[in-house]
Amino acid sequence: MAPAASRSLAENEELLDRLTQELTDLVDDGKLELAAGALVVHHPADRAELLECMPDAARDTLLSHLGDEDLAEILDFLDEEPRARFVSRLDDATLARILVFVDDQVGADIVEELPDERVNPVLSQLANREEVSELLSLPDDSAGRWMSTDFLALRAEWTVEEAFAHLRRERPDTGDHFYLYTVDNEDRLLGVVSIRNFITAQPEARLADIMVTDVIRLDQKTDQEQAAERIRHYGLLALPVVDEQGHLVGLLRADEVLNVQVEEATEDMYLQVGLGADVSPFSPILEALKVRVPWLMMNLVIGFFSAWIVSRFSKTLGEFTLLAAFMPIIAGHGGNAGSQTSTLVVRGLALNEIGKRDISPVVRKEFSFGLAYGLLAGTLTAVLAHYMSNGDVRLSGIVFLAMCGNVMLATLGGSMIPVLLKRVGVDPALASTVWLTTLTDWIGFLLLLGLAALWLEAPGSR
Amino acid sequence: MAPAASRSLAENEELLDRLTQELTDLVDDGKLELAAGALVVHHPADRAELLECMPDAARDTLLSHLGDEDLAEILDFLDEEPRARFVSRLDDATLARILVFVDDQVGADIVEELPDERVNPVLSQLANREEVSELLSLPDDSAGRWMSTDFLALRAEWTVEEAFAHLRRERPDTGDHFYLYTVDNEDRLLGVVSIRNFITAQPEARLADIMVTDVIRLDQKTDQEQAAERIRHYGLLALPVVDEQGHLVGLLRADEVLNVQVEEATEDMYLQVGLGADVSPFSPILEALKVRVPWLMMNLVIGFFSAWIVSRFSKTLGEFTLLAAFMPIIAGHGGNAGSQTSTLVVRGLALNEIGKRDISPVVRKEFSFGLAYGLLAGTLTAVLAHYMSNGDVRLSGIVFLAMCGNVMLATLGGSMIPVLLKRVGVDPALASTVWLTTLTDWIGFLLLLGLAALWLEAPGSR
Repeated sequence: MAPAASRSLAENEELLDRLTQELTDLVDDGKLELAAGALVVHHPADRAELLECMPDAARDTLLSHLGDEDLAEILDFLDEEPRARFVSRLDDATLARILVFVDDQVGADIVEELPDERVNPVLSQLANREEVSELLSLPDDSAGRWMSTDFLALRAEWTVEEAFAHLRRERPDTGDHFYLYTVDNEDRLLGVVSIRNFITAQPEARLADIMVTDVIRLDQKTDQEQAAERIRHYGLLALPVVDEQGHLVGLLRADEVLNVQVEEATEDMYLQVGLGADVSPFSPILEALKVRVPWLMMNLVIGFFSAWIVSRFSKTLGEFTLLAAFMPIIAGHGGNAGSQTSTLVVRGLALNEIGKRDISPVVRKEFSFGLAYGLLAGTLTAVLAHYMSNGDVRLSGIVFLAMCGNVMLATLGGSMIPVLLKRVGVDPALASTVWLTTLTDWIGFLLLLGLAALWLEAPGSR
Repeated sequence: MAPAASRSLAENEELLDRLTQELTDLVDDGKLELAAGALVVHHPADRAELLECMPDAARDTLLSHLGDEDLAEILDFLDEEPRARFVSRLDDATLARILVFVDDQVGADIVEELPDERVNPVLSQLANREEVSELLSLPDDSAGRWMSTDFLALRAEWTVEEAFAHLRRERPDTGDHFYLYTVDNEDRLLGVVSIRNFITAQPEARLADIMVTDVIRLDQKTDQEQAAERIRHYGLLALPVVDEQGHLVGLLRADEVLNVQVEEATEDMYLQVGLGADVSPFSPILEALKVRVPWLMMNLVIGFFSAWIVSRFSKTLGEFTLLAAFMPIIAGHGGNAGSQTSTLVVRGLALNEIGKRDISPVVRKEFSFGLAYGLLAGTLTAVLAHYMSNGDVRLSGIVFLAMCGNVMLATLGGSMIPVLLKRVGVDPALASTVWLTTLTDWIGFLLLLGLAALWLEAPGSR
């Protein structure tokens, strides 16, 4: 078995395809017991993967042959999108029965994602209704929504021997990890006993005497991103989660935080192109229009303004049509250079690599870079203009100045916009791109066409 | 103490500023013992944070007053950028002395980041030279480079009682976690004992009889991104890392994987704008030019080609200069619409939400979206053209068709380009944007100017 376990099914597409085919064949041949057995030998995470890959009909048949606990284990490991599809095929009573075996926080997510008309019917049939409702009352994106409620707390007044007896009695099914949090008699978090101290202490020592009381903890309402960063910052495998009164209510594990990070990364990428977190590649078209059109409209209006700027220079363009050929490259290349700068600065700010003291050196450095690269790009573009215009010095000169100026201003903007956005409390990662490319477009057009207008109208220019 | 621990210093800028000021004042007053004491009460992660915020002179003075072990603890928690600055201020002998107390994998990173001329002098003075050199021989970005070498292995032939005695003797300083991996007498990984089984087993039971042998593991050369995904996929707090012969060599912890994810995210963002992973906002200008210019040049050449396309239509533009005003908006808005689509598809592919079977429905759906939104954007742009041209029906018609066509093709391209890139083995996240915006620029110009040329040259058009 060991070699197979060194790669997950998701990483081994060939094996995944073959196993999916075999399972589907078994189901199609009516050998459902065999198929269920062949599925269950895999890790629940891989079972979820296999089911996702099967054709709908065969999967539904197989699912109806699995027990509630098996289904629950699969739900624990499915990603949001396939989980919603899976849940949509279960009736309310079956879902409520299965949810009892699912982790509370996963159960809360599932209930929350249900269509409105299913929420109450499912909740009312749910045996662990209270726990799930409590989690649902926490803010979305809070640490409490990601915590595991499956943990053991030890009373601080117990001796090591009593704690041991408790552990043997409770037989914690925590698999790979082991935390010895101590609480008072009202379940308020008091401390944590290190494994080292626990193992080497005298049996009659009180936990209160060997525990560490300065426990890094999370409030259940802490924002998930902050919680993730705290776990990463301190290099911990888990943090205890407490409510407002300090009661130990859960445990945020570092592996859950990996899911938080993936979700946050998706949200950030989506927001950059004006997509809400709820949109998916499978959203129906009307929903997609509703979510995606507002951002597109904002860009369209910005574009209308660009069109208006350019239209002011109709006379100049009419006399010198080659200018139009250089509009896109000067505007666009300013955007390219500026986006390198803004990516460096946005990321530096996000990772705290760029502190307050670093801002002005970074802005100065980027401006020097813009100057150096602007001269290079301007020269190359002027050479192209020279050939395309059969040696028109005016065009080369205008193109050189416009490219050089736009690249310089783009690196200045690319370094300053994220800093300014951060100062006014807007996430620089999300808004910098739109502002920067708008700026480089407008400045590029104004420089190119404005310089041309000045030159053409200057006495003796023709 | 407890309430203070509920937020890290990095999250509490006000407190961080105040503490930094107090520390700096103590150092400036020559009260170095007090300052060192005030620093050491904080978690090593927060010490690193505080030191980063101090002025250079005060920090250097304070650092020279810390012991080797204190310095090593701080190095373990510093991010790459500040760590390199910190290390650059230490001489070779001091660094080699400190590195012995640092985690091996952090030590390897530090040695690797040293300027070439320092690597051998430092390595030759390093007491744990062999361990560090071995890690350095592993591929960059491999699981082995992130693993902790600080773990305990138990012999499978031991009884539970013997294992307990071993643990008491070794007093594992593993703080918050506890893994009971079993090995054979040549240290090859055999299995893992669950805490539950370990606590509840009879003292005379052999570990071999209570261990699970189907251990999900990592090869030390496994790519870091794959390793991260495997930990997330299976929802584990750590995975054992083995070498080619199956010897247990380390432990990849989920909290380290958080660092892997942050590094990968930075790399992805950087690569999208042509920045190498080694570049930083603080790179000297010549280095920045070397790293950043190649990508910019590629974009410049693409831009030259756009300029050439537009220049082919000089005659048309000369007769109809308002067309120039609509060039940027039609090209750019195709890019906007297409980037929403490509973001959805790229992310869907990365998270395996879009499987093979989903590709053609998604492409079809995006094309319908493009059709619907293209009609809307085309109509609005045509209305603008109507007003700007004082009612020229030709311009409105051309603008409508070009916008509509470019948006439709952009959504088609935005959904198909990532899929095609993935099929030829190129990371869709990195290359999709460049290809897509190139495509929407070229198609936008060709549609707008090409349609105009056809219309103007058609008999009876004027």
